[in-house]
Amino acid sequence: MSAPAAAELDAADPLAAFRDRFVGSDDPDLLYLDGNSLGRPLRELPARMADFVEHAWGERLIRSWDEGWFDLPLTLGDRLARLALGAAPGQTIVGDSTTVSLYKLIRAALTARPDRRTILVDRGNFPTDRYVVQGIAAERGATIGWLDPDPSAGVTVDDVRDALSDDTAVVVLSHVAYRSGHIADVPGITAAAHEAGALVVWDLSHSVGSVPMELDAWGVDFATGCTYKYLNGGPGSPAFLYVRAGLVEHAAQPIQGWMGARDPFVMGPEYAPADGIRRYVSGTPPVFAMQPMAAMLDLIEEAGIDRIRAKSVALTEHAVRLHDELLAPLGARLATPRDPALRGGHITVDHPAFPELIGALWRSGIVPDFRRPDGIRLGMSPLSTSFSEVDGAVRRIATELARAVGSPAR
Amino acid sequence: MSAPAAAELDAADPLAAFRDRFVGSDDPDLLYLDGNSLGRPLRELPARMADFVEHAWGERLIRSWDEGWFDLPLTLGDRLARLALGAAPGQTIVGDSTTVSLYKLIRAALTARPDRRTILVDRGNFPTDRYVVQGIAAERGATIGWLDPDPSAGVTVDDVRDALSDDTAVVVLSHVAYRSGHIADVPGITAAAHEAGALVVWDLSHSVGSVPMELDAWGVDFATGCTYKYLNGGPGSPAFLYVRAGLVEHAAQPIQGWMGARDPFVMGPEYAPADGIRRYVSGTPPVFAMQPMAAMLDLIEEAGIDRIRAKSVALTEHAVRLHDELLAPLGARLATPRDPALRGGHITVDHPAFPELIGALWRSGIVPDFRRPDGIRLGMSPLSTSFSEVDGAVRRIATELARAVGSPAR
Repeated sequence: MSAPAAAELDAADPLAAFRDRFVGSDDPDLLYLDGNSLGRPLRELPARMADFVEHAWGERLIRSWDEGWFDLPLTLGDRLARLALGAAPGQTIVGDSTTVSLYKLIRAALTARPDRRTILVDRGNFPTDRYVVQGIAAERGATIGWLDPDPSAGVTVDDVRDALSDDTAVVVLSHVAYRSGHIADVPGITAAAHEAGALVVWDLSHSVGSVPMELDAWGVDFATGCTYKYLNGGPGSPAFLYVRAGLVEHAAQPIQGWMGARDPFVMGPEYAPADGIRRYVSGTPPVFAMQPMAAMLDLIEEAGIDRIRAKSVALTEHAVRLHDELLAPLGARLATPRDPALRGGHITVDHPAFPELIGALWRSGIVPDFRRPDGIRLGMSPLSTSFSEVDGAVRRIATELARAVGSPAR
Repeated sequence: MSAPAAAELDAADPLAAFRDRFVGSDDPDLLYLDGNSLGRPLRELPARMADFVEHAWGERLIRSWDEGWFDLPLTLGDRLARLALGAAPGQTIVGDSTTVSLYKLIRAALTARPDRRTILVDRGNFPTDRYVVQGIAAERGATIGWLDPDPSAGVTVDDVRDALSDDTAVVVLSHVAYRSGHIADVPGITAAAHEAGALVVWDLSHSVGSVPMELDAWGVDFATGCTYKYLNGGPGSPAFLYVRAGLVEHAAQPIQGWMGARDPFVMGPEYAPADGIRRYVSGTPPVFAMQPMAAMLDLIEEAGIDRIRAKSVALTEHAVRLHDELLAPLGARLATPRDPALRGGHITVDHPAFPELIGALWRSGIVPDFRRPDGIRLGMSPLSTSFSEVDGAVRRIATELARAVGSPAR
């Protein structure tokens, strides 16, 4: 079955107009399928940053700390929680890198389960998640229990249930797998962990802003994620961090800083943690770096996360059809679930010739990601990606692949 | 002796023209003496950020990681090291918050002195330094040795020598004290610590960019500092971190992340630290947030750190003279060393009436900082502050103070 014409899909797309609001979307020579690694910037951003520099920073100066900045980790966190996390206020902050946040959360989970010494983690989890776990295991004398799911799929409830024991303190997994795009059963796995007395840390980097979630309803304990992917926060923008209400007082994070203290400007002799989620703040909040993400949340609110997800599914469906039609006949293999209910906002296609193609593709303005050993990852950020962009990129990849394998492109 | 006329000092100032390059410096109703808390933004910043958004981020997108971003923590760190730290390349990175950096460095120091359990820290050190130490001491079972210097001065070599023992692993101090402005004898204290077999972590937040330093020549082991003060990086801009060459392989930092791994994009199963200082990087570098600081380094290079220091001394000398002439007769007390060789870029003046004055001062556009219990801190960022600005602010504080104490202003 041939894929429907991309132009028709674009014409019928209720969110199509959002694309115009991103820098570079009017460049016909740039086909960008890596918004799940680094989202495009908003066109409004230069004016917004100029306003920030001139007024909040340049005119109000330190007075701005009392005029919103001091609370910004919490207020921006609450806004993100409402629009994209399915979480009530008072449980989410924005601050450190995802890596530092993972460190804080896993360490915190261990303090809440002091009699247990095993950390379960997926061997297919993103490297930084695994490396943080390895570092913590070494320093705390903990044991790592490795989960080994099918790499084209992801961790299932049964995988986790089989690995849990009464020594499991915490399970560290990703909602959407960074390579395969597989969506994990967060409520099912969380419930299984809880039945065994363990806690969960979910990495939401590849789902936040494209896959709806219900952290509160799912009973998630801890979560963190990047904001430079589907939240378009810019390179290295600060991560968010969620701790379930009721847990925060029983799970101490290790990096005690002045901005997480009860009254930072008293500067008292002893650290006393602030009430609630603020105690997870360590240093001075990265206010400047939070601005692009704050702008993107306006668009997410306008579009609505459910409509964003609907378009995301339509985009990946189109990409899968194009794969089947154009890439599979050349020997490519889809490394992503075919069931859209099990698939996040990107797909990965493997082919032994891809490692030699990726450089030329990038130079020619076709920019997907590459994932070892031989995967091209096609990320479709719903508000900035058009069906025509996906279509053009996959057709071009097919042309290049046909040339590489010495077969005529279809 | 009356202070010389501010206008004459401005006329003779070889760095006077730099002031025009900062946002807000042309507003006669805003007298800003808190550039040592949050530096003013550069006027060029909106254009620079627009260019960054349009090109490096918006056009090159993920390709920029290969075109400079991946190395930016190191290249920006090396540039800072050359211009302001007195340090050779390969020892400095820019990345996490100061608090997270302190956590990494103190933990690293403890791994390099595994048989010792005492951390020495100044009771007058900035709160976050003390809180980080308290957290680490609790988690590692370490002992805190508190130094109690005269609060209007700072820690001396003798204070430290008296407290050192063969159980001291690390000494955590500030180069310039955040309240008094006292400059510590970094080479002397570092040598004393080394004689006792201990390491040092220096917090350079209140000196970097205004007080020259020679980290390599002084034998400093570890250092970190803010970039939103005299480096004008914007609210919450990422801190820098220095580890002496030769020590980095023997002092492991605890937050293992993918960007500190030997080859991040191999995404291998086991964390293997990168060679050299890169292993102190944890998460994705905050590239967007590094831009304002990068712009400020251009100005520091143009002006030169020695000329910056000379103006800084002239500014604080002027402020001390104004204190003596206008504030001391009203009962104020200088809480800062009178010897300019012992004084950083700010002074603190104490008076019991100051807590009730500070709000009105801020509202009227006179913006120094307030430090408990009753100190007004006058910070003079050398490139953005004029002598007239200092003069106007102190005269206005004197007027308000005279009114508060029911005495005629002089």
